[in-house]
Amino acid sequence: MNSGAIGIFDSGIGGLTVAAAVRQLLPNESTIYIGDTARVPYGPKSPETVRRYAREILDWLLHQDVKAIVVACNTVSAHALDDLRTRSPVPVIGVIKPGARAAAHATTTNTVGVIGTAGTIASGAYRIALQRINPAMRVVEQACPLFVPLVEEGWLDHEATRFVAEEYLRPMRNHGIDVLVLGCTHYPMLKPLLREVMGPEVQLIDSAEATAGELARVLNELGLVAPARSAVTQRWVATDDPARFAKVGAVFMSGSPAPVELAELGKLDA
Amino acid sequence: MNSGAIGIFDSGIGGLTVAAAVRQLLPNESTIYIGDTARVPYGPKSPETVRRYAREILDWLLHQDVKAIVVACNTVSAHALDDLRTRSPVPVIGVIKPGARAAAHATTTNTVGVIGTAGTIASGAYRIALQRINPAMRVVEQACPLFVPLVEEGWLDHEATRFVAEEYLRPMRNHGIDVLVLGCTHYPMLKPLLREVMGPEVQLIDSAEATAGELARVLNELGLVAPARSAVTQRWVATDDPARFAKVGAVFMSGSPAPVELAELGKLDA
Repeated sequence: MNSGAIGIFDSGIGGLTVAAAVRQLLPNESTIYIGDTARVPYGPKSPETVRRYAREILDWLLHQDVKAIVVACNTVSAHALDDLRTRSPVPVIGVIKPGARAAAHATTTNTVGVIGTAGTIASGAYRIALQRINPAMRVVEQACPLFVPLVEEGWLDHEATRFVAEEYLRPMRNHGIDVLVLGCTHYPMLKPLLREVMGPEVQLIDSAEATAGELARVLNELGLVAPARSAVTQRWVATDDPARFAKVGAVFMSGSPAPVELAELGKLDA
Repeated sequence: MNSGAIGIFDSGIGGLTVAAAVRQLLPNESTIYIGDTARVPYGPKSPETVRRYAREILDWLLHQDVKAIVVACNTVSAHALDDLRTRSPVPVIGVIKPGARAAAHATTTNTVGVIGTAGTIASGAYRIALQRINPAMRVVEQACPLFVPLVEEGWLDHEATRFVAEEYLRPMRNHGIDVLVLGCTHYPMLKPLLREVMGPEVQLIDSAEATAGELARVLNELGLVAPARSAVTQRWVATDDPARFAKVGAVFMSGSPAPVELAELGKLDA
């Protein structure tokens, strides 16, 4: 038993879908969410830069005495997870392996679609993880760089979003996929629309939910689960402009995660 | 006469439309373009952070011995121009005043539309500049946050882009504007499509062209024009991932502005 908090970090606000899934599955756990809003997005940045930023956030979270860390960011999970694990005294959980495992479990045709930002798709991280589970897995990948700005615009069920989704996903439907991995933390916000576009025969895998499940497994295995009666706290932290974080965050959390703190940027020179 | 280079800076690649306009109008001038690709976008960042970043880039450019500086970024022009001017020994030219002046000159109905990123529109910088020229000016503003990712996706004449543009601009057409200011350096790439959506009775003002014109005026006034036979050089600099800069830059420059250098980030801790 351990009543310490779970640290959850993302380049921005997208990881709030992961925080929401954690809160849903593990309501006794305290959480500290930090979004590096001063330097978002990480997607177009070089792997070296992403690793440097991730190390800075790791240090910050370790100073808050967290008992486990969830990397709620596909780009960081793709480029920096091994690096973070060698540096961290507490377990570090990424979003990619849990998503890949859930997809591999769900597919019956061994043909899985993966959508994500340009950076995540270029890294091939989901394809590699899926084919490590099953070398015969066929993986159909598609970068969807417009989905993040569409979600942040709040156009979750908008005709333009449907148009963009059709354009991105039409080719995937011809490949016989029966599972589609939402390989970006923003995409669960588009689930109803994506379900319509893909049709009922394609199962959507929400990495956020899969990651929360993996966190539960790890906490349990290491004896780190919070006692049932411990006081639950939630902290929300941004590295720039907490007001904007609260505003856009409200789209994700169905209600504002206020008050949002500004991180002590001592080392985080953003 | 002065054969020094013009420094042009932007948070990313959007300012390349300004660089192209400068090259077009002033082919004898050498240029150094620096895009802060490690920290793009500036739009959602706080004014204090934007000013800090802008000062770092100013210092870097001054170390390259430039004779004038063009701030090819609406966000920096809105938040940091006065600050930069007090610090710079060479003239600093922004994009907002030249765009506003061209619009004020072009309108006959005194009703001007302005489109830009969320940050530029929230700053009210164009409205303020327009009403300083003519206090009776009616200004209709609209943030178009999806245009930048659509341009960077290369969807310059795509049905989805037309759909998004219709959605953003339809309300503007009912306000009787006869001039529309493209208040973001990415937007000139969408000119043909925007012209179609707005119809022939609305004149589009390209801030990039207006800014190049203002630069020509300032160089001439201060005796800084390059001698006709001076060797012309062009440098392209990014603060992260020069390869991506070259790739996306090719959309803007109709051809790659390679080779792209990586900036010495001594002080620019990105």
